[in-house]
Amino acid sequence: FAMAQSVDLSGSAEMGIFGGETAANVDIEDQFHTDIDVTFSMSGETDGGLTFGASVDIDEQIGDNNATTGGAESGATQDDSDDGGATIFVSGAYGTLTMGDTDGALDWAMDEALIGASLGDNHEHGGYNGNSLLDGAFGLDGQIARYDYSFGGFSVGVSAEVQDAAGGDDTFGVGARYEGEFGTIAYAFGLGYQENGDNNGAAAGGTSASALGFSASMSMDSGLSAIFNYTDFDDAFTSAAAGTTFGGFVAPGIEINDHIGVAVGYEFGQLLVAANYGQFDTSNGDVDGYGLIANYDLGGGASLQAGYGRSDYDNGAGPDLDRHTYSFGIAMAF
Amino acid sequence: FAMAQSVDLSGSAEMGIFGGETAANVDIEDQFHTDIDVTFSMSGETDGGLTFGASVDIDEQIGDNNATTGGAESGATQDDSDDGGATIFVSGAYGTLTMGDTDGALDWAMDEALIGASLGDNHEHGGYNGNSLLDGAFGLDGQIARYDYSFGGFSVGVSAEVQDAAGGDDTFGVGARYEGEFGTIAYAFGLGYQENGDNNGAAAGGTSASALGFSASMSMDSGLSAIFNYTDFDDAFTSAAAGTTFGGFVAPGIEINDHIGVAVGYEFGQLLVAANYGQFDTSNGDVDGYGLIANYDLGGGASLQAGYGRSDYDNGAGPDLDRHTYSFGIAMAF
Amino acid sequence: FAMAQSVDLSGSAEMGIFGGETAANVDIEDQFHTDIDVTFSMSGETDGGLTFGASVDIDEQIGDNNATTGGAESGATQDDSDDGGATIFVSGAYGTLTMGDTDGALDWAMDEALIGASLGDNHEHGGYNGNSLLDGAFGLDGQIARYDYSFGGFSVGVSAEVQDAAGGDDTFGVGARYEGEFGTIAYAFGLGYQENGDNNGAAAGGTSASALGFSASMSMDSGLSAIFNYTDFDDAFTSAAAGTTFGGFVAPGIEINDHIGVAVGYEFGQLLVAANYGQFDTSNGDVDGYGLIANYDLGGGASLQAGYGRSDYDNGAGPDLDRHTYSFGIAMAF
Repeated sequence: FAMAQSVDLSGSAEMGIFGGETAANVDIEDQFHTDIDVTFSMSGETDGGLTFGASVDIDEQIGDNNATTGGAESGATQDDSDDGGATIFVSGAYGTLTMGDTDGALDWAMDEALIGASLGDNHEHGGYNGNSLLDGAFGLDGQIARYDYSFGGFSVGVSAEVQDAAGGDDTFGVGARYEGEFGTIAYAFGLGYQENGDNNGAAAGGTSASALGFSASMSMDSGLSAIFNYTDFDDAFTSAAAGTTFGGFVAPGIEINDHIGVAVGYEFGQLLVAANYGQFDTSNGDVDGYGLIANYDLGGGASLQAGYGRSDYDNGAGPDLDRHTYSFGIAMAF
Repeated sequence: FAMAQSVDLSGSAEMGIFGGETAANVDIEDQFHTDIDVTFSMSGETDGGLTFGASVDIDEQIGDNNATTGGAESGATQDDSDDGGATIFVSGAYGTLTMGDTDGALDWAMDEALIGASLGDNHEHGGYNGNSLLDGAFGLDGQIARYDYSFGGFSVGVSAEVQDAAGGDDTFGVGARYEGEFGTIAYAFGLGYQENGDNNGAAAGGTSASALGFSASMSMDSGLSAIFNYTDFDDAFTSAAAGTTFGGFVAPGIEINDHIGVAVGYEFGQLLVAANYGQFDTSNGDVDGYGLIANYDLGGGASLQAGYGRSDYDNGAGPDLDRHTYSFGIAMAF
Repeated sequence: FAMAQSVDLSGSAEMGIFGGETAANVDIEDQFHTDIDVTFSMSGETDGGLTFGASVDIDEQIGDNNATTGGAESGATQDDSDDGGATIFVSGAYGTLTMGDTDGALDWAMDEALIGASLGDNHEHGGYNGNSLLDGAFGLDGQIARYDYSFGGFSVGVSAEVQDAAGGDDTFGVGARYEGEFGTIAYAFGLGYQENGDNNGAAAGGTSASALGFSASMSMDSGLSAIFNYTDFDDAFTSAAAGTTFGGFVAPGIEINDHIGVAVGYEFGQLLVAANYGQFDTSNGDVDGYGLIANYDLGGGASLQAGYGRSDYDNGAGPDLDRHTYSFGIAMAF
């Protein structure tokens, strides 16, 4: 008979210090860092054997009302036409349908060039690409539906993100992924494509914006791992609105041509050290950067984490800019 | 000895699509629907055998700060002079005292004319009456105290909702309910009365506003169920403030005379189909509508839900208006 | 091996009535009181035997966005440079490091002169000192790091609260505490000191602001308990901003000289009765008050609570002011 429904709790917390320097050459004072979150994971199973579930963080239910990261984003529990950070799925023999704050097919298929963790995600610099540049863009709200299906080491996925109001265009994506092992090496390849009929309202109007990306990753039993990530953009512009930032630098209405990212890491015993580099080629000069981390696993869910990131903007329209941040402390998973 | 105190978790999630047309004849684009919530149910027992408890949803603790449904309603955890969506009770041999976001005695006693569920409550149209028209009205905040007591199939209840500031009037209510069985038929009758010395600030000032309602419902083992609901209003006006809506239509300062509602449903196997109709007779013409649902129970807490609702306003002050919405998807309870 | 990580739930709820009179001689209408909260307590243990943990309330994750008590305070989950109400700790043989919304060393070491509880903390009047006057002051955000260490009945602690932006000064504190027993009497002494290089921007600028406090408390097996609390302030001013309140009275830019507080309580069977008195000596006259409570323990986590508090301001700059509030109801812990 059907599995009992459940709501499970997990949590995370961080304490430490952070600091750095902004792009305007202003010191970020060395100061305390504290963060906390709680996740509600719900799961069930129908009489017919379909599994279903949903997930929401305690801070997602209210959205970015009180945010340091954006405007008045709607909460997960409040506006049903927006996901607000929740994900919901149904899964069976014929694949999995996920709706909400989930990856578009390109992001789902590809590995981002990032290894390790830091309290303030300091190793995610201006040249870092999380593969989601075409998700939640073009005036869309990031509420995505994705269907994916796996057979052997292969997985394929398709995704859609639709306009809530008249005007604008929907975003569609398709992705494929292969995961395998060769001796003591585990490897994965990802290929993804996303497109929107709009091109973010850039003055240089015209054809639709798109992204075609490829990633390759491998990890060896010896502790070495590496990720390569490349994306070619076509007619993808940042918003022309004054003050629009890209990679943490003010860069309205610039065209993003392509991105390349690499990450390497080495784990020995409880220690993981890793570095990553990424570069966006834009119509207004390169936005690039690198990140460094060292993570020491204390066991039981706790780890010491040090992170550093530096970002550079070869600003074609003015003086070159750079910024950097660091953090150090203890991260806890419950 | 006393039962251990507990805080229990339950949850819900929905994914699907919705669309329709507004009263201004604007298409609501067909788009994704996602929703999620988590409920905390607390319970305990005193040494003397009184049970007590409380309940709050994860989104109620913050209120309508980020809402699509109203203004800056206070959260359940923040303003103690408002309930913000929480309910709290103490219960013993002499009855139950409930305080917070609970039904006034009329709403508590009566069955609303509604059967089945839909993702966006699309089957709750402009002519639908949830029996709570006199709760949270007259400038009151919806923080209600209700005492109810059951003996055999009978229950009686009284309720009060008091003004937090000087001026205005309190709302009082009284209700009675009988539940019984006749062969394979379960039936219930409800009778309720509520009154406030104010009449919602209507220009046509004067006596106090009141509602007297009656409901009858029955469900047969064969799967057929039906609900009838009638309420007579006296000096009950919508707010005169410009833009005030009633049943989803702009209708400030109109008097509500009476309401009638009926619902019928039939359940066979996993499928439930139901329809409901309701009509408000107002000083400015009828506001009525109907709703249709089909629910298919997948077991384990999941069900497929389709819903449709259409609302009409025989607007005496201008052209007739109508609007409709639909939704379809999967609803999950955890 | 390492203890399993866990996230535990606890909760509280209150229902009752409250009322009183404001300092402007305006009646606070007798009205309903409802409140609710849920606490997430997380804990774990590293392989090396360090324990770690964190705690957040459901309402702290969003901050004072919708508050009746302050401005747009950041939520615990949202701005990592502010604690927003969360606490996080690591503890081992060499002591405990706590970061977040925790007590500065003075508040940590001292006992406040308060016994018993009331729904609206009505017994915390204008002359009540929670020992935290120098925490979260001087433009700081209340995000504190404290290290404490215990040996036998002794505990010592040091604390720091650092500026997030350029300008201003950090607050440092040191405290010591002794707890012991003498026959049927348990007693405790606390001593604390905190200092900030700033003096809250008072017109009478100059030296740094500081507080030096001492407390003594005892409780007897017979049910009698008493607390004495004294703090000497040096160059501690309330903010000069118009409308700044102190003890619930408008009192911008006044200097606080010292504070004295006493509380006595007697518990017999399920009943606790207690009274407390406190007085601030300020440059503009005394701010003092008293509080009374009666608590009856119903068992199982529930208790009846009655509370009353009255506050007086011998306002040197105008007519004397007073205000008072009361509450009565049931408080529940789950």
